[in-house]
Amino acid sequence: MGRVVEITDVILRDAHQSLLATRMAMEDMVPVCKDLDDAGYWSLEVWGGATFDACIRFLNEDPWERLRMFRKLLPKTKLQMLLRGQNLLGYRHYEDGVVERFVNKAVENGMDVFRVFDALNDLRNLKVPMAAVKKAGGHAQGTICYTVSPVHKIPAFVDMAQHLKDMGADSICIKDMAALLKPQVAYDLVKGIKEKCGADTLIHVHAHATTGVTLVSLMKAIEAGCDIVDTSISALSLGSGHNPTEALIEMLEGTGFETRVSKELILKVNNYFTKIRPRYREFASDFTGVDTEIFKSQIPGGMISNMESQLKGQGAGDRLQEVMEEVPRVRQDSGFPPLVTPSSQIVGTQAVFNVLMGKYKAMTGEFADLMLGYYGSTLGEKNPEVLAKAEAQAKKPPITVRPADLLKPEWDTLRADALKLENCRDDDEDILTFAMFPQVAPKFFKARPNGPLNLGVDPVVKPDAPATAPASQAKAEAGGDATVKRPMTYVVTLQGREHKVTVSAPT
Amino acid sequence: MGRVVEITDVILRDAHQSLLATRMAMEDMVPVCKDLDDAGYWSLEVWGGATFDACIRFLNEDPWERLRMFRKLLPKTKLQMLLRGQNLLGYRHYEDGVVERFVNKAVENGMDVFRVFDALNDLRNLKVPMAAVKKAGGHAQGTICYTVSPVHKIPAFVDMAQHLKDMGADSICIKDMAALLKPQVAYDLVKGIKEKCGADTLIHVHAHATTGVTLVSLMKAIEAGCDIVDTSISALSLGSGHNPTEALIEMLEGTGFETRVSKELILKVNNYFTKIRPRYREFASDFTGVDTEIFKSQIPGGMISNMESQLKGQGAGDRLQEVMEEVPRVRQDSGFPPLVTPSSQIVGTQAVFNVLMGKYKAMTGEFADLMLGYYGSTLGEKNPEVLAKAEAQAKKPPITVRPADLLKPEWDTLRADALKLENCRDDDEDILTFAMFPQVAPKFFKARPNGPLNLGVDPVVKPDAPATAPASQAKAEAGGDATVKRPMTYVVTLQGREHKVTVSAPT
Repeated sequence: MGRVVEITDVILRDAHQSLLATRMAMEDMVPVCKDLDDAGYWSLEVWGGATFDACIRFLNEDPWERLRMFRKLLPKTKLQMLLRGQNLLGYRHYEDGVVERFVNKAVENGMDVFRVFDALNDLRNLKVPMAAVKKAGGHAQGTICYTVSPVHKIPAFVDMAQHLKDMGADSICIKDMAALLKPQVAYDLVKGIKEKCGADTLIHVHAHATTGVTLVSLMKAIEAGCDIVDTSISALSLGSGHNPTEALIEMLEGTGFETRVSKELILKVNNYFTKIRPRYREFASDFTGVDTEIFKSQIPGGMISNMESQLKGQGAGDRLQEVMEEVPRVRQDSGFPPLVTPSSQIVGTQAVFNVLMGKYKAMTGEFADLMLGYYGSTLGEKNPEVLAKAEAQAKKPPITVRPADLLKPEWDTLRADALKLENCRDDDEDILTFAMFPQVAPKFFKARPNGPLNLGVDPVVKPDAPATAPASQAKAEAGGDATVKRPMTYVVTLQGREHKVTVSAPT
Repeated sequence: MGRVVEITDVILRDAHQSLLATRMAMEDMVPVCKDLDDAGYWSLEVWGGATFDACIRFLNEDPWERLRMFRKLLPKTKLQMLLRGQNLLGYRHYEDGVVERFVNKAVENGMDVFRVFDALNDLRNLKVPMAAVKKAGGHAQGTICYTVSPVHKIPAFVDMAQHLKDMGADSICIKDMAALLKPQVAYDLVKGIKEKCGADTLIHVHAHATTGVTLVSLMKAIEAGCDIVDTSISALSLGSGHNPTEALIEMLEGTGFETRVSKELILKVNNYFTKIRPRYREFASDFTGVDTEIFKSQIPGGMISNMESQLKGQGAGDRLQEVMEEVPRVRQDSGFPPLVTPSSQIVGTQAVFNVLMGKYKAMTGEFADLMLGYYGSTLGEKNPEVLAKAEAQAKKPPITVRPADLLKPEWDTLRADALKLENCRDDDEDILTFAMFPQVAPKFFKARPNGPLNLGVDPVVKPDAPATAPASQAKAEAGGDATVKRPMTYVVTLQGREHKVTVSAPT
């Protein structure tokens, strides 16, 4: 018997977030939960990240209800979520009382493992959420956002791991959102943490597959003592997603490492998702291969398509290459932040501005805040000229305190504002939903009684479909106001002959 | 400076054979040859395998002319080919004189490295072609077809490597056509060969990517001392193809191993093929993910689609799963041959027969020959009952001699028959083309003066395309008699509104 390597499958959260724009309906996950629960995973990542936003914005689904349902359907397996530290699942810093309430409610509704990260790796932004997780009885996973820069050396990451442990972390996650973690670094980093923080320090490696090298990195991490790895069932893997669970299991044969996951059960899960995936082709990422240019730009897959659409919106779709080259410069000017939500969007958008309008001629408010410390501190030094411009534009001083220290208690105001909304319930869950998504929540509360949507569309086109299927009909069938696109079958007559023509909906 | 790991890029042969049905036109390879030649590869695989067949069958292109052109365009880099031992590039055994002529002509026209394999790993089938390569001044790469079975243990493969070395092999290839080579076996096998055959034994690992684990296997092979690995430019990689060249190079950073390949030049090559690949979408393999079920069935990707179409042709498209389970049994009955051309087709077709008509109720002539030793010997013992049936059906005895020993000199007959054909030249190249493809060569010789075809189709559909583009016109534009399919744009009027409808050609 070899050493057991544990697996967290991200199929129910990050896999469809990375590959299907987070659109998978709960309805399409329910049938497979029993097999996933029995399969022998360390945990299943099911919540957090962009799923909360997607639930209320696109799926008319209550994310708290989703969590409760997962708890019911997955009684044996630890549930795991991704939490953006002091930002929770939103895009700003929240006052500590709100953070604590969120964590308490997540635990109450069934969450076990909280992967808590901060985009800048600022430990101060992790302190309150991690303490809240501990207090509520959850598993607090302290997270290192992996990035590459002249200031991000292995000893710095190892030190960060020790600080996280000192803060009470139950495990340490090495989070490689852009697939930058190469095999040798993976080995050295895991080895370094185990040596400094103790051999019993639980290390969990999360790596995307985008650059094609990270399955090798997982092998090396395991050789160095890594305890848990993230993978995804193969039907929803690779591209800007994750390494396939099945491949990880097979890879370990004969190496002296083994997993507890049942190949038989996950084969069933894979067969299931092989059928489900095509239902979401409309939302599928175009990128299915390998891109090693990311090692230069460090730009995660999702960010590139964001920048591309920003550029196209400005009639400058041909300037993507310039932007890709500008991103590393903007990153250097802002102190080498890791690129992950929200820093990736902030740096990416500023790079677009620089290319279109000239270097820092215009600055987004968010970028000025990043420069001035309102998101926290960065490991690298900031470019003083750009800092001065940020100060001038934002008309506020740089700060060095923890950003949330500047916030006043806000729960009562949030509650009062939330309760003005139609259908908002007077419970912490709804108020938290409003707190995180004040623009989207009103519409969601109103529409919630209509029930969740399933935006997936069966790809089979019946040969005897009606001659015309107007868009309005397709929309009506989906049972909601979401824009549903599906292939249309027309019967057309050309040069005296009848043709059946199936046309994919434009995306 | 670390140890240099050399790379063979298979982009010009096996990559498009595995992913685009071997259809890439020479015209689409020419512009990239300069960069490939300058990039620093150990060799470029450019010829052999199915390319010869595809050239004359689909592309109206003289494969010998292709070889000469590659030689001219790639003056600095070794050219490499895949040779099916005594079968050459055809599907039967050839008499030794024909084998020698083929090898001589290949060397004369510019070939350097001959990867010589036998589907059954029968060394007797490798002896004459390898000796011919040595005599003609080429590099003879002795090949082990990797497979997994109760009789295929590491010591057996290591012994085979030693035998190949004794036969004069300049290097040893571990050929993993179905992506079965797991990391630990890769390590142990390379280590075992280096220990038994000497540390200076050049080891070249060829692995497909289909199961998702083989980039890790290449890492382990390299750690064990492997000298050369096969990869493919990322734009034409993964799925049932190969691991991406760029990922291999990046993977090695910091490990103490490095390559000589220029990242800058192969980025140009990749950008080029990123544009070219969509031209061949009609021929593209549907499979782009990872399939670990192959570890059970051992069926290479191409074989599954073959069996599927055989089944569909019999109205039994729903019985694929039964056939997949039958393949390992047929393989056991026939002595555990590795599954690679032609044994993969022979075993696969027999499995289809067994499922459709009952166990060995009907036997293909090829399967009977395989049972009776007419392709050579297998490592495992054959099922005596099935052997008896094969003997009864084929009405010939089993043999134990080298199959080609039963063949009489055949060159003069082949030449006489070839020269009867319209446009057949009286040179060895044309006669060899006829010898390998007697059914296809007559048509090819006749059409050859029309020049090579390019079956690639630009995916951009002009918005102002004519309302109808009849198939015959598309055909005419392609400049030959191949069936060319391209998207058609129709203008159709439905419910009083005009629509522009673009329809992909059926495949």
